[in-house]
Parts: sequence; C-alpha cells; structure tokens
Amino acid sequence: MRAAVIHAPHDIRVEEVADPVIRQPTDIVVRVVLSCVCGTDLWAYRGVAEFDPGQRIGHEFIGVVEDIGADVMGCSVGDLVVVPFVWSDGECGYCAEGLTTSCEQGGFWGTNGSDGGQGEAVRVPCADGTVVRLPKEAVSDRRLLTALLTLSDVLGTGHHGAARAGAGTGTTVAVVGDGAVGLCGVLAAKRLGAERIIALGRHRSRTDIARTFGATDVVTERGEAAVEAVRELTRGRGVPAVIEAVGTEQSMWTAVQIARDGGSIGCVGVPHGSGTGFDLSDVFERNIALRGGVAPVRTYIPELLPDVLDGVIDPSPVFDRAVDLAGIPDGYKAMEERTALKVLINY
Amino acid sequence: MRAAVIHAPHDIRVEEVADPVIRQPTDIVVRVVLSCVCGTDLWAYRGVAEFDPGQRIGHEFIGVVEDIGADVMGCSVGDLVVVPFVWSDGECGYCAEGLTTSCEQGGFWGTNGSDGGQGEAVRVPCADGTVVRLPKEAVSDRRLLTALLTLSDVLGTGHHGAARAGAGTGTTVAVVGDGAVGLCGVLAAKRLGAERIIALGRHRSRTDIARTFGATDVVTERGEAAVEAVRELTRGRGVPAVIEAVGTEQSMWTAVQIARDGGSIGCVGVPHGSGTGFDLSDVFERNIALRGGVAPVRTYIPELLPDVLDGVIDPSPVFDRAVDLAGIPDGYKAMEERTALKVLINY
Repeated sequence: MRAAVIHAPHDIRVEEVADPVIRQPTDIVVRVVLSCVCGTDLWAYRGVAEFDPGQRIGHEFIGVVEDIGADVMGCSVGDLVVVPFVWSDGECGYCAEGLTTSCEQGGFWGTNGSDGGQGEAVRVPCADGTVVRLPKEAVSDRRLLTALLTLSDVLGTGHHGAARAGAGTGTTVAVVGDGAVGLCGVLAAKRLGAERIIALGRHRSRTDIARTFGATDVVTERGEAAVEAVRELTRGRGVPAVIEAVGTEQSMWTAVQIARDGGSIGCVGVPHGSGTGFDLSDVFERNIALRGGVAPVRTYIPELLPDVLDGVIDPSPVFDRAVDLAGIPDGYKAMEERTALKVLINY
Repeated sequence: MRAAVIHAPHDIRVEEVADPVIRQPTDIVVRVVLSCVCGTDLWAYRGVAEFDPGQRIGHEFIGVVEDIGADVMGCSVGDLVVVPFVWSDGECGYCAEGLTTSCEQGGFWGTNGSDGGQGEAVRVPCADGTVVRLPKEAVSDRRLLTALLTLSDVLGTGHHGAARAGAGTGTTVAVVGDGAVGLCGVLAAKRLGAERIIALGRHRSRTDIARTFGATDVVTERGEAAVEAVRELTRGRGVPAVIEAVGTEQSMWTAVQIARDGGSIGCVGVPHGSGTGFDLSDVFERNIALRGGVAPVRTYIPELLPDVLDGVIDPSPVFDRAVDLAGIPDGYKAMEERTALKVLINY
C-alpha cells in the first residue's frame, strides 16, 4: 500500500510501505476513506518538532474496518469509524477520567513505528478504546464525511479549548488564531452558548469562516494593537475566557494580555518557542488560569457526534483544498505557504 | 508615631513618621495592636522586589478603629478589625466577583505613599470594602488574636492555593514549601476535606507544624529526589492537587513534576525568577492547569473567620518569634536567616 513518509524537513514522500496486519488481539486494520493534513504536522514539516526520519505521518482519519483482532468487541469488519489523533485503551485510570491523551497504553500516530493517518490503511491498536463507529451511510455524503473527520482532532481540540477557557451560556470568549483549531474553537464556544465571540485573525477568508461559525467580532490587528482592540471591545476589561490556538510566544502573550483578571486561557496551541519567554508574573498578579493542553478528543466524540450528524454544527468549511494521495506533498506546501487553510486527502 | 521604613535592601529602620489622618470620607485610621513580617516582605528586603526607598512596609495587621471618615458605615471607633494585605472598595465588578486583589480602587500597603502595616497606626482607604470586624474580646486572648492575624494574608493565601489546586473531600494534595503560606495551605487543604496531604519541606520544626496542621506525609528531599519520593507515595502517578507556595523556578518545576496528568497547581508563591525558565510544554502535554495568583483574602475572611473563632483551625503556630516595634529589623534578619519562621510584632 502507499503512505506518506517524512524523511526530513520539507521532504514528505508518498511511498510503497508494508500492508498493516493485526499484531495484537486488540488491534484492528482500517482502510482509510478520508484523511487530512493538520497544522501540527507542519511543525515536523518545518523541522521544529522532532520526528524519526522515515517515520509515517498524519493523525486524522476516517475509514472502514478491514480486519479485527480476536478481542475486539466494539466494531466489526465493514464498520465506518473515526479515529482520534491519539489511541487509548479506554480502561486505565486516565481514560476513566476522560484524559485519554495520558493513557498508559496510548500513543500518537507515526511514532515508535506505528502507522500514520496519511496512508491507505492503518493498524489501530487498542481499537475498543480508540475508534468510534459512524453511520455507514455517511460514507456517501461528502459534506457530512468531511465534517465527521474533524472529530479526529480539530473539532475536539477547539472544544477542549472552549471548555477549559470556561465558555458557557452568555459568556464572552476570545479566540487567538484563525487556523482550523481556532475556527473550531469559535464553533465550539458558540455551541456551548457563548454570547459574544471575538476572533483574532488576519486572513479575511478565515475570519469570514469565523463569522459563519459564530464570531460576533473580528480583530485583524496583531501585537499591542490587537490587545488594544480587544480591550476597546470589552470596556477596557479584557475577556474572561480566551482560547489560545496557535502556541507561539507571541500568541501566548496576546492571550494573556487580552484576558480579564480572574479569567482562564484554554490552551490548545501546541507550545513552540515558549520555553524561554513565558513570564508567570503577569498571570499571577491577575489570577489568570492557564488550562488545557493536548485535547482528549476521544472523550468528546460522544458529545459532539450527534450535533455533527444532526447538522447543528458543521465544521466542514475548515477544509478548503483537497488532494489525492500523490498530492500530499503539495498539500503540505500549500498549508505551509498559507494558500490553503486545511487540506483533505481523498482515497 | 513610629513605623518601619525600607530605605535599601537590608536597611529597614523604625522611624518617627507623621500620624495618619482621614483624607477621604471612606477612610478610617486604625491603631495597630498586632502585626507581623511576611515572607513577601523579604523579597523587598533582599532587593529582589522593587520598592521606593523610604517607603513604608508591612501588610498584615489587626487594630482598633481610632477615627472614621464621614461615609464609613461598616465599623465604628473602638471596633477591633482585621485588615487584608490589599485594600479594596467592595463595590467594583472585580470585588463583586470576589477578585478583590484586582479592585479598581485597590492598593497594596506601603505603595504610592500609603501607610504600611508595620507601624503604630495606619490610614485604611475604602474601609467598608476592606476591613472585617472581629469580636472585641479577642484583643485580650493572645493565641486567638495571633490566629486571627493570619486572616490578613497567610491563611487566606493558603486557602486560595488549596481551593485553586482543587483540594476537597477525599482528595490528595501536595504542598511545595514549608513557609507560613505553605503551612497554611496544609491547614486549608485539611479544612477542605483532603484525605492525604503531602508536605514538601526540609526544616524539621516546620514540617512538624505541617503534621500538626494535617499533613499525612512529609518529603524532605529536594529536586529530582523530591519528585521521586512523591511519585513513590502516589504509585508513580503524581498528585492531582498541588499548592505551590514558594515562587522560585525550582519550586515551580517541582510542582509541575509532582502533579498528576490532568491535575491543577494552585500557585500562591509570588513568582521570582520564573520569567526566563518556565516551559509550557510539560504542562501542556499533561494537561496540568496553572491556577491561583495573588490571593483575594478579603473574600475568604467571612468563610474562614468562624472556624478560627471556634478553634476548628488554629493557624497561630506559624508564628515562632515575637519582637516589639524597635525589634522589627531583627525580625527581618531572623526570617532572612531562617532562624524564625514568621515574626510577630507587638505594640
């Protein structure tokens, strides 16, 4: 079969690799029907995040169960399933608490010799804890299938940021970042009942989606000017619930500056470069909570899935480009150059 | 009257200063009957925290109302009152939310020409929002008066750390730091129902108090060894609720390392030196929340006061030395040299 392999920064190739097979009785093999490229993949692509040269890549996919291990109870061959970006056993103490990203048997696609989501098939460990079945008819509904794909990462991650920031009925929420996660943060905040949602972003095509998703205000400025704009919108007070969906030192600084004293920042942008510049003094003086982290999206799927199936929320507009398997390198390039927001991969 | 004045690092003098007088109709003048030296005062004493040379110092005091402004409704001349370490108007949006430390009219004793708590009398602005009346008979009960003094800072600060860390019925809590705030964190965690309380500290006399206050385990190691010891006590998992009561880079690192994935750190140690070394990656990967900050102790007094008056909790053992006004410089020296835990000032 063919799959994407990362050899070096800016060197992603689609190659012939071994077909996946059941190794553990809790494994399944999934034939991928739709996957995509994530902003997180770009950190490896840029050489900022570590990877093993030659490892597989991609962590968001929907597919059809092709083979199942002897102990798998939760799905059958032929089922359509969505797979979260971390596999998890569903049985350990962390999974029981809903923190599936800390699962003791868990792992991230592509690491330690595991398969990646950008390929024709994937061996999925801990299948019963990991995958969630979808209605089979969704496979022929392109828009719905695309919307469901976001359950594997960006929708659940946006929801994690919104929930940890404290978004709820009647709240004011700000979202730093207009990538797919930031946009899903807007959608999730709206779904949780936020009354006012301030989206910070510079790209018109993206902030237009933010408005579709529920943003009531858009701030296109950056740095000090962005902080001033948000403070003007909030009578100088700042925002009680901030979703940080970028992960750079600059975006983190912005999130802190626009937060209201006593507020919370739901951090879902993977930190990059914040090891040397984050000053705890400001959050301490103003009692701002830093919450969030790697989103346990598996936990959120049962809550979010019905609303996606019913069309209450439609995250599918975060995808604005599609490639086939051979086009994956072009997909990365487009996202890196910001000519695409998020790239679908067709099979 | 006489009051403590800080001129330079390690140069605190007790000098003759102007008697305080009512300036605003919301002011009162309090004749101090008991005050003390705080660990926070030491940061100025060491020259680490900024101060205006010649400014007054001290922020924890109990006293008798000597004069009141025309608009003051909540107390009368002759009342015994406890005064929090920040004054606050009790009326603004932040005060209404309980975040009195962000009060728009609030301030910290000694700054901007205000009086300090280590002196014979203090002009207290925003009296109705700030002070809390105490039973007058407490003035003749030395132990009780000493216990009540902790409501001005360390008990409320320990409570803030415990509450923000998530201490509650049946929880496991760890406390980094064996200063007065850390010890009050132990007491507060116990009061909130914590089942297991792990106190980290090296000083036997202090960890003995921690045990009296409710600590079930004491870890005397530091650094990696402390982390290993706490993990051994918690089956390798770490602690879901950590109170950080020191504020150094090392202590913050320890708090993060001993926290269980998905746990919370209630930060009440004022950050010093953490501007350059705090890495968000570890808390992000493990979904550890950083909460807390400058404690809004005024908000907590109504909750804590009855338990102090009834003897349900007795924080008075955090004081292990007493000086008179002239002895204040010696009190600072003793705390700086760690020969005293916390020094009372008698009048």
